[in-house]
Amino acid sequence: MNRITRLKTPIHFRSYAAVGGYEERNGPLGERFDFCDLSDKFGQKTWEIAEAEMGRVALNIAMSKASLSHENIELLVAGDLQNQCVASSTGLCGFGIPFIGVYGACSTCTESLMTLSSFIDSSEKMSLGAAVTTSHNSAAERQFRTPIEYGGQRAKTAQWTSTAAGAFILGRGDGDIMITEYMPGRIVDGATSDGANMGGAMAFSAFDSISAYFGESNSDFREFDYIVTGDLGRVGSEILKELLEKNIPGSEKLHTDCGLLLYDFQNQDVHSGASGCGTSASVLACHFLPLLKEGKIKKILFMSTGALMSPSSLLQGENIYGIAPIITIESRNF
Amino acid sequence: MNRITRLKTPIHFRSYAAVGGYEERNGPLGERFDFCDLSDKFGQKTWEIAEAEMGRVALNIAMSKASLSHENIELLVAGDLQNQCVASSTGLCGFGIPFIGVYGACSTCTESLMTLSSFIDSSEKMSLGAAVTTSHNSAAERQFRTPIEYGGQRAKTAQWTSTAAGAFILGRGDGDIMITEYMPGRIVDGATSDGANMGGAMAFSAFDSISAYFGESNSDFREFDYIVTGDLGRVGSEILKELLEKNIPGSEKLHTDCGLLLYDFQNQDVHSGASGCGTSASVLACHFLPLLKEGKIKKILFMSTGALMSPSSLLQGENIYGIAPIITIESRNF
Repeated sequence: MNRITRLKTPIHFRSYAAVGGYEERNGPLGERFDFCDLSDKFGQKTWEIAEAEMGRVALNIAMSKASLSHENIELLVAGDLQNQCVASSTGLCGFGIPFIGVYGACSTCTESLMTLSSFIDSSEKMSLGAAVTTSHNSAAERQFRTPIEYGGQRAKTAQWTSTAAGAFILGRGDGDIMITEYMPGRIVDGATSDGANMGGAMAFSAFDSISAYFGESNSDFREFDYIVTGDLGRVGSEILKELLEKNIPGSEKLHTDCGLLLYDFQNQDVHSGASGCGTSASVLACHFLPLLKEGKIKKILFMSTGALMSPSSLLQGENIYGIAPIITIESRNF
Repeated sequence: MNRITRLKTPIHFRSYAAVGGYEERNGPLGERFDFCDLSDKFGQKTWEIAEAEMGRVALNIAMSKASLSHENIELLVAGDLQNQCVASSTGLCGFGIPFIGVYGACSTCTESLMTLSSFIDSSEKMSLGAAVTTSHNSAAERQFRTPIEYGGQRAKTAQWTSTAAGAFILGRGDGDIMITEYMPGRIVDGATSDGANMGGAMAFSAFDSISAYFGESNSDFREFDYIVTGDLGRVGSEILKELLEKNIPGSEKLHTDCGLLLYDFQNQDVHSGASGCGTSASVLACHFLPLLKEGKIKKILFMSTGALMSPSSLLQGENIYGIAPIITIESRNF
């Protein structure tokens, strides 16, 4: 089965922005965020609408950085973790841009960039589109676990859902950084129903995608500066590294995980690391894309990792399924 | 803004299947369904897993009708109404097909067909993909409203979420019926937060899309046999007809709604009609595609209609937002 699509013409990043909250500002990448609201509230009354507003702000900043308005953007692909993905629809409604809602749990950032690339590639008339991904710690805690006021204790394998958003404007034509390939992920049984160990559950899907990619592409992993996963955290990254070491020896040295980069493990109480679909979105926008733009790195294999489950599915004894779509991002400035 | 994409090569329906439950079998289209489980349980212990199984069965039937196996399908685009879209991921996991999850509430069927068309159009190597959409009345009732055992009274404007699934296999090359154009919908404020009147809320997005389509395409609505909406039901259809009559006079005579076709209003207690993303998916698969294949009609404008909301967003006083993506489906047999 052919899974990798090489885009007929590379799709360029025209602009991008990362927005975060309190913990994100205090993490090692804090100063690289375009904007952080230390109250996590973004001027709103509820955490849910705060998340919606965060996505709106992120897209506004990305447009502003490229001197674009909503009238220049012809398609919006977005998703989040809230039930029925309402953070995206509520936050982005006001732009009036044609909209495709996607859901891939924490894999949504890569999924939306891949889907948008395919639409731009398919539609000859479309020149610019945007992808937005958000997650909010307090909205996620009360939806997936318990309200933060409850003060529930978290397992050491659990991760910290980031309050973060990434917005990306993609288009044809010139640019320094471009998406050259995409490969959708398969749904892989994570072999656990432990909602406090989603990193562990997702590691198998990340390995499935990485081995499928190198199996099909015949490319050498040494062409890449990094193999970036979304939010495996400490536990999932350990499992993935072991799998890579055994099966694609040497590739494990290129692995890095956005969930390990966003927070300071010494001074922030984030257990196994960051999670939430805003994690890979914001780390891509404030860390990897700048590195590519500045010519410090040349090429990355970027895959956000998603845990496909709901609180009901876990209560009903279903396993967590993982998914890890891949895009290849290259720099012309290296 | 250009919104309509004319596909470089039309994407053909290679196969399709409709699966339903008890009420669907007893409706006017009942005999045209490929399979109905009168228990609504599909052999499963929970309504949620019954929905997952229904999607799996629908895709199996569609593959079987075209003598295809999961190994022939290179991409799966799917969505449903369950929180975090777990019906799709749980039900379709076993096929091992690369997967894109989409969420557009009840617009998911058209959204998934449009997204899959774009991926097939973009990827030169991909020849066959599948789109699956499901909804289950009992799973939706307890998630969005109250468990069915509670026996809550429903408002006359409320609709009946269908227990139904549609599966479609699309590809390049020859075929009798084809998708020739797509147009993503915009998110349109439904001007109400009444969760018992989603048809009314969605009518404005349907009108927005229809008027944008005819405004941009310069085509005459008389080229179409039908302008098909997803699940506006009686209330939403009345509003849409009035808007069409005033703004695109004559076009209202071509309007028909899947939510009005699935059940028998005399003998089934469905209030304003059918809803749920399985509605437009199953009615497309068991009614409109057969009409096109048999050459009884030539061309339809097909738009599933989605109400973007969650129980939390309504409790927090947010409005319901509507979305109505469009695809044009044509027959070569007319």
